Amino acid sequence: MDEIEGFAEGEAGERSRTYTWHDPMASFAELAGLSGLEALQAIAAGRVPRPPISATMGIDGVTEVEAGRVVFHMTPGEMHYNPIGSVHGGAFATLLDSACGCAVMSMLPAGDFYTSLDLSVKFLRGMSKDTGPVQCIGTVTHIGRRTALAEARIVDANGKLYATATSSCMIFRAGDA
Amino acid sequence: MDEIEGFAEGEAGERSRTYTWHDPMASFAELAGLSGLEALQAIAAGRVPRPPISATMGIDGVTEVEAGRVVFHMTPGEMHYNPIGSVHGGAFATLLDSACGCAVMSMLPAGDFYTSLDLSVKFLRGMSKDTGPVQCIGTVTHIGRRTALAEARIVDANGKLYATATSSCMIFRAGDA
Amino acid sequence: MDEIEGFAEGEAGERSRTYTWHDPMASFAELAGLSGLEALQAIAAGRVPRPPISATMGIDGVTEVEAGRVVFHMTPGEMHYNPIGSVHGGAFATLLDSACGCAVMSMLPAGDFYTSLDLSVKFLRGMSKDTGPVQCIGTVTHIGRRTALAEARIVDANGKLYATATSSCMIFRAGDA
Amino acid sequence: MDEIEGFAEGEAGERSRTYTWHDPMASFAELAGLSGLEALQAIAAGRVPRPPISATMGIDGVTEVEAGRVVFHMTPGEMHYNPIGSVHGGAFATLLDSACGCAVMSMLPAGDFYTSLDLSVKFLRGMSKDTGPVQCIGTVTHIGRRTALAEARIVDANGKLYATATSSCMIFRAGDA
Repeated sequence: MDEIEGFAEGEAGERSRTYTWHDPMASFAELAGLSGLEALQAIAAGRVPRPPISATMGIDGVTEVEAGRVVFHMTPGEMHYNPIGSVHGGAFATLLDSACGCAVMSMLPAGDFYTSLDLSVKFLRGMSKDTGPVQCIGTVTHIGRRTALAEARIVDANGKLYATATSSCMIFRAGDA
Repeated sequence: MDEIEGFAEGEAGERSRTYTWHDPMASFAELAGLSGLEALQAIAAGRVPRPPISATMGIDGVTEVEAGRVVFHMTPGEMHYNPIGSVHGGAFATLLDSACGCAVMSMLPAGDFYTSLDLSVKFLRGMSKDTGPVQCIGTVTHIGRRTALAEARIVDANGKLYATATSSCMIFRAGDA
Repeated sequence: MDEIEGFAEGEAGERSRTYTWHDPMASFAELAGLSGLEALQAIAAGRVPRPPISATMGIDGVTEVEAGRVVFHMTPGEMHYNPIGSVHGGAFATLLDSACGCAVMSMLPAGDFYTSLDLSVKFLRGMSKDTGPVQCIGTVTHIGRRTALAEARIVDANGKLYATATSSCMIFRAGDA
Repeated sequence: MDEIEGFAEGEAGERSRTYTWHDPMASFAELAGLSGLEALQAIAAGRVPRPPISATMGIDGVTEVEAGRVVFHMTPGEMHYNPIGSVHGGAFATLLDSACGCAVMSMLPAGDFYTSLDLSVKFLRGMSKDTGPVQCIGTVTHIGRRTALAEARIVDANGKLYATATSSCMIFRAGDA
C-alpha cells in the first residue's frame, strides 16, 4: 500500500496518514480571469495546487485536459474502504463528480460559472486495493446556454469498466444579469 | 476550522492533516455472525472501529441506528473543498451513499449481503465551512427479496435541506445458492 | 378491460381503441394569465380539456391539486403492455413525469414557466390489468429561484408502492430578462 | 399531422384517433423458445405484432436489431402534447425505456429474462410536431450474470440530440433456481 502518501502502519492494526493541501481560496484567486480550460491546465501542470478534496480522497488530480474531455487518476487503497471490505461508493462518486464537473468547466469561457445539479452513479464492479491505478474520463454530452450534461467512466489499466455516471449542470453566463 | 482532527496550518497557506483508522478486514471479521442492525449498532457504540472511508472523509460515523433508518454526522470543512471554493459533490455523495447503504444493511439478517447498484444525488444548496454540522438521514423506501431502494437527505442544525439521494441495492440472501 | 374508453375486441385477438382530445394550443391559450395552481385547478375541474398525452396514455388526469401537491389517476390495462406481458415502463414514467411536473407547476405564479431537466424512475413492482386503479402523488421537495426538485410515487388502492421518481426542473421567472 | 394513424380532426378543435393492437399474451406465446435477439427480429420483421404500448404511443416499433444494439422510430405529434404545448416527457421516456430494455433483451439467450430496475432520462431539447421523425438508439454498456446497464439516445434526422437515458436491469438466468 505504498501508493498512499504519508501512510504508516502501527501496532494492533492501526494505520495513520498525513497529507497536505493549500489554502483553496488562494488557489481560486489565482484562477481569476482564466477560462475553464486554462484553469484546469494550470492545475494539471502543477502551477496551481490541486483542490483539498483531491488531497483528502487521494486523487492524483487531473492529468489530461482538452475542451470537453478530462482525465483523472487514482489508486484505490485501504483508506477508501467501507465496513464490508471494499472501496466505498463515495470514492467512486468523488472521482466521477470531479470528471463530470471539470469536463463542463473545460468548455466555459472566462467569467462563466457552473454548478452541478445532480450526479447519478452506476456501480458496475467493485474496486479494492488489488485493482491498481484507475483512470476516470469525463466528457461533455451536451452543452447549451443554461445547462450542460456530462458523463464519466472509471476504467482500469486494462480498460475494464467499473462505474459510469452522468451529471447535469446549470451554467451562469457572464453576460447575464 | 478546529473541527478537523489532526489539522495544522503552515506557512504560505499550506495545511496538513493526520488521521488514523484501523485494519478494515479485522473490523469486518468482528462483525461476522451479526445481523446488519447489530453490526451497525456495534460501530455506532464504538465497539468496532468506523471504516477507513469515514476517517478519510471526516465523517463522524453512524450515530443513530434502528431497523430501516440510520443517521450520520459530519462537519463540512476546508478539507472537502473543490477548486471553486465550496464543498465538493464527492463529500455529499460519500455521506449520502453511507446513509443509503447502511439503511438497507440495517434490515438484513445475519448472513445476507447487499451491494449498491447506483447512487443518484440531487444537489440543492452548496455547503461551506460556515455551514456547521450536518446530519444525513437514510431510510428504506422499499425492500424485497432481491432488491431494495433507500433514500437519504442532508440537513443542517436548522433542518435546512442541502441534498437528497436514492440508491438501489441488490440483496444476496443467505438461503440462496 | 371495460375500463379502456373506446375499446373493442375483434376476431383473432385484434383490439381497437378510439379516443379523442382537443387542440392543445387552444387549451394552452385558455390558461394564459393563470397561476400554475389556477391552471391545474381549471384542468382538474374540466373547464379546460386534459392534454393530449393524458388521453393517449389513458390517464384520467389530475384530480387533486393544491400548492406543492397533485394527484393523478390511471387504470393500467392491456393497452399499456410491453412484449413480455406486463405494463411498460413508459406508462409508469408518463404518470410520474406528469405528477412531478405538475407539482412544480402548482407552485409557480402567473408568468413563470418551468422545464424538466430529468426524470429518474425506480420500478419497484410490476403492474398488470389485474392491478386495478392506481394513483400517482407528486410533491415538491425543494423550490428555489432557478430550480426545483419534485418527487412522485405510484400506489394502488391498498397503498402498495409500485414506483417512485424524482425530477429536477429549471424555472424561468417572469421578472428575469 | 398525417403521420398519426387513424387521426381525424373534428369541429371546435376536437381530434379523434383510432388504432389497433393484438392480444399481447398471444404474441408473447409466439416468442417462447426464442432468444431475445430472435424475438426482437421476429417483431422487427412483422412476423409477431408490436406490443400494445407501441401502438398506443405511436412508436413505429423496433426497426434495427443486433446483439447489444436496437433502433426504434417515432414521429412526435400533437397526440404526445403536454398542457404547455410541447411533447410530454412520457413520450420521450417510453421510447427510451423501450430502447434500453430491448438492447438488454437482445443479449439474452432463450429462457433468460430481465426486469428494469430504473430509468433515468435527461431531457436536452424539446420535441414538437415540427421535429419530424426521430430515432432512438439503445446500446448495452455492461452486462454481467445478474445485472445489466443500458443507455439510449433520441436523435432527429440531422443527428441532433434530444434526450439520453440509462437503465439498470436485473437478469434472471434460466440455469438459476
